Amino acid sequence: MFITFEGMEGSGKSTALNRVQQALLDAGHGVLLTREPGGSRLGRTLRSILLDLSNDDIVPEAELFLYLADRAQHVGQVIRPALAEGVVVLSDRYADSTVVYQGYGRGLDPERLRELNDMAVGGLWPDLTLVFDLPPDEGLRRAMTRNLREGTSVSEGRFEAEHLAFHARVREGYLTWAALHPARFRVVDATRTPDEVFEDVMRAVRSALSAPARP
Amino acid sequence: MFITFEGMEGSGKSTALNRVQQALLDAGHGVLLTREPGGSRLGRTLRSILLDLSNDDIVPEAELFLYLADRAQHVGQVIRPALAEGVVVLSDRYADSTVVYQGYGRGLDPERLRELNDMAVGGLWPDLTLVFDLPPDEGLRRAMTRNLREGTSVSEGRFEAEHLAFHARVREGYLTWAALHPARFRVVDATRTPDEVFEDVMRAVRSALSAPARP
Repeated sequence: MFITFEGMEGSGKSTALNRVQQALLDAGHGVLLTREPGGSRLGRTLRSILLDLSNDDIVPEAELFLYLADRAQHVGQVIRPALAEGVVVLSDRYADSTVVYQGYGRGLDPERLRELNDMAVGGLWPDLTLVFDLPPDEGLRRAMTRNLREGTSVSEGRFEAEHLAFHARVREGYLTWAALHPARFRVVDATRTPDEVFEDVMRAVRSALSAPARP
Repeated sequence: MFITFEGMEGSGKSTALNRVQQALLDAGHGVLLTREPGGSRLGRTLRSILLDLSNDDIVPEAELFLYLADRAQHVGQVIRPALAEGVVVLSDRYADSTVVYQGYGRGLDPERLRELNDMAVGGLWPDLTLVFDLPPDEGLRRAMTRNLREGTSVSEGRFEAEHLAFHARVREGYLTWAALHPARFRVVDATRTPDEVFEDVMRAVRSALSAPARP
């Protein structure tokens, strides 16, 4: 069982991810919580390159291929071995982030990006993808409040510093992409309280866990 | 004018590259000598990852995408700006290395690799590609002699440590790929003396320089 959490910064996906992990552990599942970029040893090096604001000279194609390298290593070295052991894998972002941010957000062809990702992950797509949806101004407001509270360095906030218009395209992109793949996507209304969001999410997770195994 | 130098380690391509640079400088050309991986600031970080023997856990797809990221950055930040200034760019390896090593060498589809590279380089292919050809056992022997003489660390010798059978596939791959793209490839018999090789190479370079500019 492979579940991914998608959505913009400030959407509450990381909070929900931690609560889902705890709930699954309590229910007796083995759980691996991981993230992209940075889910492998190589990936942590790549993450520091990708999220470093001082690397603002990276050309778009190079950025894309770094994300794909991170993902290929993450799948080959971390996710596949965990799934083979029967562990439930929860990932904070996965291939859909690239399709949506680089595709709908920056204007590359989403279908081309899907093909590149399919190559990177060797055909491994999630059983369930949760999209935490909220208006981009609300997400940015939350993310900025959090950064101020936590004193997060500016280098962690690269995406958050980008324009609102970009985030609006990303939101539309997630909704479009989810609508194109309804079998594995669940869009979660993230404007509600964390408890309400968590309840929604667990309903989707339990339903996925009780579904027949993938062929 | 964009000229790339291809061939296995020990084929004499780096020696020829330096002599071509000098000859072009003497003739009054602006010349940029560069290489892959590692032709940009980002690329030097990626080169250290790719050629570090201790990174033997990198999965093949991640390795491929790291090469493509290095190349995209190299083209966008180094090669294109130099060509725009009218400089002759000489690169020690380029996209054909990936097609040949990952494709013919490791069994990925060469045409698929050409497409991925075309995306990475935004359609920028060399005006002239010189393939330094010699039997793989001769190349390995030369490379090992050089490493012993120069005390090159083992981390620089990752490819050289690989099996002879792999290098035989690489050689066949270069010859096949060159035969498929005869307009820009010249195969140089690298078993001869450095002077003879250099003369051959300069004939091809001069002919390329006197040809009509690319459309």
